[in-house]
Amino acid sequence: MKMRKLTIDDAVMERSPGQAADIFTGNLVDERHGGPVTIGYGCWGPDQSLTETMAVDDVMIVLEGRLSVSTDNSEVTAGPGEIVYMPRGETVTIRAHPEGATTAYVTYPHWRTAGDA
Amino acid sequence: MKMRKLTIDDAVMERSPGQAADIFTGNLVDERHGGPVTIGYGCWGPDQSLTETMAVDDVMIVLEGRLSVSTDNSEVTAGPGEIVYMPRGETVTIRAHPEGATTAYVTYPHWRTAGDA
Repeated sequence: MKMRKLTIDDAVMERSPGQAADIFTGNLVDERHGGPVTIGYGCWGPDQSLTETMAVDDVMIVLEGRLSVSTDNSEVTAGPGEIVYMPRGETVTIRAHPEGATTAYVTYPHWRTAGDA
Repeated sequence: MKMRKLTIDDAVMERSPGQAADIFTGNLVDERHGGPVTIGYGCWGPDQSLTETMAVDDVMIVLEGRLSVSTDNSEVTAGPGEIVYMPRGETVTIRAHPEGATTAYVTYPHWRTAGDA
């Protein structure tokens, strides 16, 4: 694997697995590339949300818009340049604000295959 | 480890190890926190650069400004919202453009202790 530049224009955005909401993700680096991490972009429609128990450690960097992330006992709101770290095992609800959001994410290990382990 | 929001305002920025340049990094999540990844922010002064052989897989997300990253046989330039993925083992020169740059980074494993392994 060589040094690479990644941009959202190169990502193939697909509906987030198991979701009916307007939340789309596109991996640019993942288990197909031989490295340890998955890297991709996320696009969140206005007020869209999902709840998930993290199978991996997930680092979400907000590029545009705003998201709130809540657990049983806490809630944070993040905007451009801010990061939400969601460790493996946490159950989180991620909700986009009315302006929607664009994110980048890095997971360890690969989220697409974490359920197969 | 619980879900956490991270912002650059919470980072303690220190001169990047082994460098005399005006390049500062601040970890917010690292080996002290029990998880697998290091997460932090970087601040690059105008035209500052460093050359490094990657001890870890490093994902650098450009938040502001512009950086060029070169290896023996390639060079990319990344601006806001773009990502440069630098796999372990690659030797890279990272150079900020005249406007400097602010970045977020995620590494696997932890870069501060990778040399100890």
